[in-house]
Formats: sequence, structure tokens, C-alpha cells
Amino acid sequence: MKVMIIMGSKSDMPIAKKAVDKLNQFGIQHELSVASAHRSPALLERIVKGSTSDLFIAIAGLSAALPGAIASHTVRPVIGVPVSGPLNLDAIFSMVQMPRGVPVATVGLDNGENAAILAVQILALKDKKLKDALEADREKTRKQLEEEAAGLNIMQTYY
Amino acid sequence: MKVMIIMGSKSDMPIAKKAVDKLNQFGIQHELSVASAHRSPALLERIVKGSTSDLFIAIAGLSAALPGAIASHTVRPVIGVPVSGPLNLDAIFSMVQMPRGVPVATVGLDNGENAAILAVQILALKDKKLKDALEADREKTRKQLEEEAAGLNIMQTYY
Amino acid sequence: MKVMIIMGSKSDMPIAKKAVDKLNQFGIQHELSVASAHRSPALLERIVKGSTSDLFIAIAGLSAALPGAIASHTVRPVIGVPVSGPLNLDAIFSMVQMPRGVPVATVGLDNGENAAILAVQILALKDKKLKDALEADREKTRKQLEEEAAGLNIMQTYY
Amino acid sequence: MKVMIIMGSKSDMPIAKKAVDKLNQFGIQHELSVASAHRSPALLERIVKGSTSDLFIAIAGLSAALPGAIASHTVRPVIGVPVSGPLNLDAIFSMVQMPRGVPVATVGLDNGENAAILAVQILALKDKKLKDALEADREKTRKQLEEEAAGLNIMQTYY
Amino acid sequence: MKVMIIMGSKSDMPIAKKAVDKLNQFGIQHELSVASAHRSPALLERIVKGSTSDLFIAIAGLSAALPGAIASHTVRPVIGVPVSGPLNLDAIFSMVQMPRGVPVATVGLDNGENAAILAVQILALKDKKLKDALEADREKTRKQLEEEAAGLNIMQTYY
Amino acid sequence: MKVMIIMGSKSDMPIAKKAVDKLNQFGIQHELSVASAHRSPALLERIVKGSTSDLFIAIAGLSAALPGAIASHTVRPVIGVPVSGPLNLDAIFSMVQMPRGVPVATVGLDNGENAAILAVQILALKDKKLKDALEADREKTRKQLEEEAAGLNIMQTYY
Amino acid sequence: MKVMIIMGSKSDMPIAKKAVDKLNQFGIQHELSVASAHRSPALLERIVKGSTSDLFIAIAGLSAALPGAIASHTVRPVIGVPVSGPLNLDAIFSMVQMPRGVPVATVGLDNGENAAILAVQILALKDKKLKDALEADREKTRKQLEEEAAGLNIMQTYY
Amino acid sequence: MKVMIIMGSKSDMPIAKKAVDKLNQFGIQHELSVASAHRSPALLERIVKGSTSDLFIAIAGLSAALPGAIASHTVRPVIGVPVSGPLNLDAIFSMVQMPRGVPVATVGLDNGENAAILAVQILALKDKKLKDALEADREKTRKQLEEEAAGLNIMQTYY
Repeated sequence: MKVMIIMGSKSDMPIAKKAVDKLNQFGIQHELSVASAHRSPALLERIVKGSTSDLFIAIAGLSAALPGAIASHTVRPVIGVPVSGPLNLDAIFSMVQMPRGVPVATVGLDNGENAAILAVQILALKDKKLKDALEADREKTRKQLEEEAAGLNIMQTYY
Repeated sequence: MKVMIIMGSKSDMPIAKKAVDKLNQFGIQHELSVASAHRSPALLERIVKGSTSDLFIAIAGLSAALPGAIASHTVRPVIGVPVSGPLNLDAIFSMVQMPRGVPVATVGLDNGENAAILAVQILALKDKKLKDALEADREKTRKQLEEEAAGLNIMQTYY
Repeated sequence: MKVMIIMGSKSDMPIAKKAVDKLNQFGIQHELSVASAHRSPALLERIVKGSTSDLFIAIAGLSAALPGAIASHTVRPVIGVPVSGPLNLDAIFSMVQMPRGVPVATVGLDNGENAAILAVQILALKDKKLKDALEADREKTRKQLEEEAAGLNIMQTYY
Repeated sequence: MKVMIIMGSKSDMPIAKKAVDKLNQFGIQHELSVASAHRSPALLERIVKGSTSDLFIAIAGLSAALPGAIASHTVRPVIGVPVSGPLNLDAIFSMVQMPRGVPVATVGLDNGENAAILAVQILALKDKKLKDALEADREKTRKQLEEEAAGLNIMQTYY
Repeated sequence: MKVMIIMGSKSDMPIAKKAVDKLNQFGIQHELSVASAHRSPALLERIVKGSTSDLFIAIAGLSAALPGAIASHTVRPVIGVPVSGPLNLDAIFSMVQMPRGVPVATVGLDNGENAAILAVQILALKDKKLKDALEADREKTRKQLEEEAAGLNIMQTYY
Repeated sequence: MKVMIIMGSKSDMPIAKKAVDKLNQFGIQHELSVASAHRSPALLERIVKGSTSDLFIAIAGLSAALPGAIASHTVRPVIGVPVSGPLNLDAIFSMVQMPRGVPVATVGLDNGENAAILAVQILALKDKKLKDALEADREKTRKQLEEEAAGLNIMQTYY
Repeated sequence: MKVMIIMGSKSDMPIAKKAVDKLNQFGIQHELSVASAHRSPALLERIVKGSTSDLFIAIAGLSAALPGAIASHTVRPVIGVPVSGPLNLDAIFSMVQMPRGVPVATVGLDNGENAAILAVQILALKDKKLKDALEADREKTRKQLEEEAAGLNIMQTYY
Repeated sequence: MKVMIIMGSKSDMPIAKKAVDKLNQFGIQHELSVASAHRSPALLERIVKGSTSDLFIAIAGLSAALPGAIASHTVRPVIGVPVSGPLNLDAIFSMVQMPRGVPVATVGLDNGENAAILAVQILALKDKKLKDALEADREKTRKQLEEEAAGLNIMQTYY
């Protein structure tokens, strides 16, 4: 099982890094590349068609055509991470509002981590161990929050 | 392989219908239910935890907490379809802007069809025949567009 | 009489602090906790159902499902404080646009102080002294503004 | 216990009607009036100061100063219902973004029903029977949704 | 001839300063005050009704009810200056979208200078010298721009 | 005293009509014209410079450059009425966000009536009778609202 | 000289028709086609690379990747016409916010006529007769507006 | 062949600089000027009518009437660059939403480089060498991206 992360620009690396870290945590093999839907369409097509990854994470800002362009070359799932900028909504809308027939699974602004978790959730459909790992991770978060809440309650219920 | 479609309200049925039709086209077994994150949280939890579906499609408008609430009860993938209304952005933002750790795969406004296609793309990762069916469907669309384009070109290149 | 403040994340503490300070000013007992609608739904339910507070203040950003999730577990009043971020409107819309039957009383972006004052106004319905304290506070603000205005007028009416 | 509903214009009556119906359902006495923050400020002040209601529901569109103007004349809770129009956000923002010290409890666009339910939730803090009625109403909704869900499941799980 | 400038908060002073400077440039007598539509409605009414100024400039952010509240107490012209903040549109919408019968003359975000110039344009209707001064000022700006343009053209037409 | 109303397009006539009716009510002489900032700039300049009106009301949609273009040819006050359309904000922003030195007094979307009232308020600075007429009109509105409120109160305070 | 018009969907025909009519008026030869950036990327590439047109007009709604995809396959100018829909801004942003190196010349929402005029303006750079025709057309519009204005002035200057 | 760049304000120089650099790269002669649609309309008209440039690049923020005003004085193509500010959308909408008959070719927020490339693409219609230069530049960008992608792939495919 493998995930391909494609950035629209090298400046998206900090967001890609969050996805990479999360994929590493779950032991998911991945490729990282950079390609532009507009400036290197042939390269992008070659990368997508040449990749043996199960699914794609595309990170892009502005008119953010990248995930849609990937999706036009494959029927594998494409997860889109809109990148923040002066308008913010430009990248969100470009990813969410795909035409009928070619979906992009959009996650939150700059939220590379959620893109990776969604990828792991998808891959877990064919790997019981991965599903267990996701549940263990969720449980761990739950416990941290419970401890935080307990700590707060003790310290800060006052009058 | 099975998909669960949950509507936030029975008025979302026309959008659910588009998803159901598409799942039927690909022969994907599915359940259809209605539950509210806010008005029936225990029912929703029971539906989600009791379901043997591989993934969820949640259709909701307004504050649209439904897909996030489903995602809080499972690590299976959750696809969100925002429903249009006077603001439109309320449902889109609620689904896209999930906090770290609990992603929702958001598709376009009222786009039940794309939610179903994304579901099929995800399920196709463990079913080669489904992937072939998706590619055949994409190819069929391509041919239709090519014929439309050819027809237009013949009729309407003028001066 | 008691108020429970729940933050969606520990990073919301500065906003919670503004609410706490205001509640202290009026001598209102309160609990402070942190819980996530999405990452710890069971903990949240336990906190809400276990609390003997009269009402809830929920502070959350992004898809901001927290106040709605609290409201799904109680019929006590829930006040929502949307937290600012790159979009701002995501948290506002999630709180304001609740479905019929489950209201959230939304106050201004990051406005923890107004959440507390609204809480005190609600509690004052059954405590005449609290109402007198609110009116005294309003009167004090009025006098400060009057002094500010007087000072300005003397200094700055010129030609 | 009594609630005062004030509309900014007689054209807001359909939204006021939804609030009135809900208050009637819970047996809450209410007054209904119309007054403009801008065109009849003295009348508004007289209505607010003369009213013996426990709290106010203000329904207004456009610049929607009504709930804020009411709140400037009382420390009783003020619930604001923004009315839809070409911009929608004008009324929402005017109500949500009140300055420090003078909160308005904003509910959803045109959502007169939620304003009334919030009013009942607030009044229920000093009336156990009202709280029981709210819980019974919530339970009734839950059951309806459960029946709807059950109906759908039987009819529409297919393949 | 006199202009009254009212700020919603002392923090609006830098914007008021831009208006004051411009009024001084044209020799227009003015008063400067601070009052809140919501926190000191009676003070505001007293200031407005007590003022002998020909017109008002109101500077306010957030729900920005100030200019509308002034306009509710007088039929003299009221110019509104929306103050920037996290949403920006809240103050703009509150001023622009006044109901029929009670206009506010809205100028640009934080644009205290344009509020003052509009005030001078209005006062110039009954003072020919003021009109001449406005035209001289416009002419001066025109000449500066012409010199800037000439300078640029000489330096930077190249290749 | 005279007001010139300029529409950006003949389709703006219904909005101009609201302004004309209001000006007629106050006995204000007026001219009505149509001119485009973009399609007939020389005609517009000729109309503006040739007019003996005291001030201008400009009605325009889309990029709505009309009031700004008028203001570039005169130092007399220019009132802008943004016209609604698919975006709404385009016309509002073009009028409100004028650069320093050339203000447009923007009123509400499609609010031709408020443009006329603002014009009358401005003209009333040099005509005591006009001011009295404005106050009488405000008083008449007040009474109507008071009667409406009284009617409602009698009919609809129930339980 | 030739222009290629490409629609993202046959439903965009009414907007394409406005462009076609305008090109016909100026005697500009043109091709009309339909192709999807996402559903038929290879067809689109073939159409663009096979076309001998001087420039492209792309008409698309939603995520509106079409003009950008065309621009990725050619260095000829690409004019984008955003198509209205529930969000409107999705198509505008996708066209305007292209990344550095690959511009799209965006015109107004649904404004097929302006796309054609811009195309004619561009082609007129190498055809003096076309430039004369554009000026004659502009002059004709000017005269119509002048007649409209004259008619209005005569009829409607009253008191 | 020559391009005229007009800034609405000298503060737009950094954006103009990006256009100038790009035009220099392609050896396109250009003029640079500053003029205001609102503060110096006659100067602007003189600059536009006096210029022998083939087309115009207009850079402006806020109500951004500059490109439209230029377009009102010429039938040569006008490219608009909206300048960012607190609202961002004000300048974008003013440029995109031009009325029928007078288009502005709008490019991205602050994207002076794309304005210049679009200008070169337009001029390349009558200069084969310029077209070759554009294709060479595109090819160069493609190669850089390919190298970046190759570098990333080698370094960062891991697990």
C-alpha cells in the first residue's frame, strides 16, 4: 500500500511534511513529488499514470487545479488539501466544486495531517491492522483529552 | 462491500437519490438512513457503530455537523455532501474545516453523484473489477464528450 | 447557580479566561473543561450529562461543532463563542446555523466576555441581586463613557 | 414568565409566527410588538422599559440594529433572529458582532422556532416542569427520527 | 458651520484624527466625542440632540450601530466610517444596509479622510469659498499626480 | 435647489423611481439622466459639468464606476446606490471603497428612497422649511409604527 | 484570424451564443467546441493543440479548470468566462487566481459578449479595419446613450 | 510593439516592477505611468489617448476603477491587476464585473507577472519570434519542475 503526495509548488512543503509525518506514524509507504497542473501538465500526467500508489494527496493554493488534474488522469481516489493565501476560498472552492464524475475528497485549509489520516482510513479498508492502529490512535487522543479535562477541572473549578 | 448513506433530514432525499443511483450503477450494496447529529445523537451513534458498511456518505445542510459526528464514532472514511441553502458556505465550511485527527472527505454542493463515485473509487482499491468499471465509465463519458464536440465542430464552425 | 465553560482546545484558553474573569466579577461559580465534539464525543457527553451547571459556554473554532454537540445532550441553554482563524466565518456559521429544535446562542468572534455576560443575564432571571449587579455594571460603564466624552469635548472642540 | 417578541417590520410576521407557535406549545405567555431601532427609538425604549417580560426575541433584517438597541435599554437576555435578504450576512453580522458588554444571543437565519426554544430553555432554569416539557419534546423528536430511520432502512437497503 | 465627530470607542482615534486633520485644513469647526449606541444610548441621544453641528461623522467597528443610532435622533446628515477588524464586512454592512427612511452616508473602511471631505462637500453647498477651496485642493492633487506621472515617464520608458 | 439622478442603465429605472417619488414628496426639483462611466465617459463629463444641480445621485450595478466617475468631475456631493445582481457585493464595494480624496456617500442595495432622503437632509442644511418637513415625515412614520405596535399588542398578547 | 470557443458543458451554450453573435458582428471566424478539463483531458489537449485559432475563449462554471487547462497546452491568449451558479465565486476565483506563468484573462460572470469583444480587441492589434469597426461600434453605443439621456432629460426634469 | 503600465498609486510600484521585469525579459518596450481614474481623470484620458502602446496594464486597489476608465477611452486591450488590501474582493470585482461592451482582462491578485505574460501572449499574435520565446520560457519552467520533481523523488520516497 502506497500513497503519492504531489505539491503544486515547493513552498507547500510544510503542509506536505505534516502528511508525511502522519503516514510515517502509520507505516504507510509514500512518494513525494512536485508538479503543476498548469506549468507541467505532461509531467503531471506521467507522474500520475506512472505511479503505483493506491491514492493521491494533492496540495495546492490559488486556483488549485492540481487535485482535479490528477483526478482527470486516474480513477484512484484523490484527496485535496487547499493551501491558505489572501483569499483562502479560491483553493477551497476549486477543490470542493468539482464537476459531476470527477470527485476530489477535500479536507481543511492547510490540513495536511487530515489528508494523511483520510488516506490511512481508506487504506485500512483492506488492512485490519491499520484499522486497529487508527482506533488505537483515536483512543490515545481521547485519553490525552480526558487527562487535560481532568487537570483543568481540578485546577479551575472555583468561586 | 457496502456503503451507508445517512441524510440529516428527509428533505435531502433528492441528493441521496443521486448517490443511490450511482451506487446501483456500480452494483454497490448500500443502506440509507436518516439521523440528526443534534436531535438524535444516540440514534446516530447506534447506526454508525451498528453498521457493517465500509464507509459513510453524510448529506447535510446548515451547520452540517452530521459527517463530523459520524466520523467521531468510527475510523472508517466519511464522505460529506454539503446541501445548498441561503448561505451555502455554512455546510461547506462545517465539513471542510474539521479539526486535526478527524477528517471528512468533502465533495461539491448538492453533489450526491460525486460522493458515490468517490465511494466507488475507495472500494475499488480492493476490487479490480470495480476499478475496471470506473475506467469504462470514464471512457464512456469521454466518448460522449468527443461526439458532442465533433457534432458541434461540424455544425458551428462558420463565417 | 453555576456555569460550565468547555473549550474545544486548550489553545482557546485566552478566550475562556475573558469569560472566567467576567463570571468571577459577578461571583458566579463555574467549571472549566476541555473536550472535543469529534475526538472525544463520549467524554463530552459524560461531562455535559454529569454537570450540574445551569448552562454552558462552548468555545470553538474551525467547524466548531462543540456547542451543537453539547446542545444535543441537554436542554439547558448553550452559549457559543466562535474562535477566529483564517476563515472566521466557519466557526460563526456552524454555531448560528443550527437546525430547528436545537438552538445555540451565538455571541461575537472571540468574545468570551459577552458569553459570560449573557450567562449572567440568564442567571439573573432568578436572582434579583444579580440583576442589580448587572445594572450597576452597565451604569458604571455609562459613567466611564460619559467622562471620556466630557474629557474629549473639553480638549478637542476647536477651530 | 413571559417573553416579548419585537419585529423590526410587520413583514417579519411569518418568522414571528414560528416563535409564537413554539411558545404556545410550551404555554409561555408572550407579547408581540413591532418597533424600529431607527425610525421609532423612543417607542422602542418605552416598549422595552415598560415590558415585564423576562426576556426579548428581536427579529430584524438588513442592518438589524433592533436586538442591540433593545439590549442597550435592559440587562434582560435578548435573542436575535436575523432575517434573510439579498446579502443575508448583514443581519447575521449585526447581531453576532455586538461590542463587549452588550451581548445578543443570535440564532439562525429566519429561525424563529429556535429563538423560542432558546427562550424556553432559559425560562426552564427556574421552572422544572418546563424543563421536563423540553425533554419530552426532544424525546418525541428523537422517536420520530428513529421511526423515519427504521422505515427507510427497511425499504431502502437493497442491492 | 460645524461638524460633530463621534467615535464608538477611544480606539478609533487614529481614524478620527484623519477626519480632524482634513476638517482643520478646510477651517471647519468641529466637536469630537465618544459614545456607544449600546453602552450609553441616553448619553448618545443627549450628545446628538444637544449638538448644534450641521452634520455628524460616526466612526465604529463590529456591529457598528453608532451612525444608525445617531440618525435615529436627528434628520441632519450622518456620515459613517466603518472600522476594519477580523470580518471587515460587519461594520460596512451595518452602515450601508440601513432601512428605508433613515440613511447613513457610508464611506470606505477606515477612511476618516473621505468622511471629512464629504462633510466639507456638503457644507460647501452653502459656502462658495469652501467650494473654491475644495476645487483648489483637487487641482493641487491633480498637479502632484501629473508631476509624478511626468517623472515616471522620463525615468522609466526604456528598452 | 436641485438634485441630478444619473442611472448607469435604463434598467435601473425602478430604483430611480423610488428616489424621484421621494424627492417629489419634498418638492425638490430634479433632473434624471442615463450615462455610462465606461461607454460614454465624455457624455457623462458633459452632463456633470453642465448640471446646475447641488448634488448627484448615481445608481449603478456590477463594477458600478458611475458615482466615482461623477465624483471625479465635481466637488459637489455624490450619493451612490448600489444595484443588486448575482454578486451584490461588486456594486457595494465599488462605491464604498473609493480612494482618499474622492468620496462617494453610499446607501443601501437598491435603496433609491434612502438616497433621496439623504439628498433632502443635505439640502435641508440651507432650508429650514425642508428640515421641518423631514422632521414631520419622521414623526409621521413614528406615529404609524406606534399605531401598528398598539394594534399588535391588543390583538396578540395571549396565552 | 480565428477564435476558438470551448464550453465546459453544453449547458453553457447561451453564454457561448452571446460570444458567437458578437464575433459574427465583427466578421471573426470561429470554432465552437465542448470539452472538459476533468472528464476529457486528452480530447481537450487535442482540440487546443490541433486548433489554428489565434486565441481561446473558455466558458466554465464550478471549479472551472477549463481555461487554465487550455492555457497549460498553449501560449496563445486564453479568455475565461466564469459561469454563475449557487456560489458564483468558485468559477471567478478559479479563473482569476491562476499561478504565475500561466495567465487567464478573466471577464465578468456569464459575460460572453465581453469575452468576444476582448478577443476582437486583441485581434484588432494586427488589423486596422477591425480597430475601426470597434471604434465605430463604441461610437454607436455612445450615440444611443446620448439619445436615451436626451430623451430622459426632456421628459423627466420636473418639479 | 509597446505596452503601457499605469498604476493607480505609486504604492503599486512593487507589482508594476514584476510586470516590468517580465516585459524586459521578453524585450518588450514599455512605458510606466501613474494616474488616478478619480483624482486625475483628464490626465488619465490624455495619457491613454496620447499613448502609442498596443495595450495597457492597469494596476489598482480598492474600488479599482482605473482599468475600466482606461478602457472607456480606447478600444485597445486593457489588462487589470487587482491589488490586495483588507477586502481583496473590492479590486477583483471592480475589474471582473465590467458592463457589456467594455471588457477588462483581469488577472490574479497582485499578479503583475501574469499581466505581463498575458501582454506578451497578445503581442505574440503578430510576432512569431515572441511566440517562440514564450514557448521556450514555458519549456524552461517545465524542465525546472521536472528536475525539482526528480530530486524530490530520489530523496523522499521512503519507508
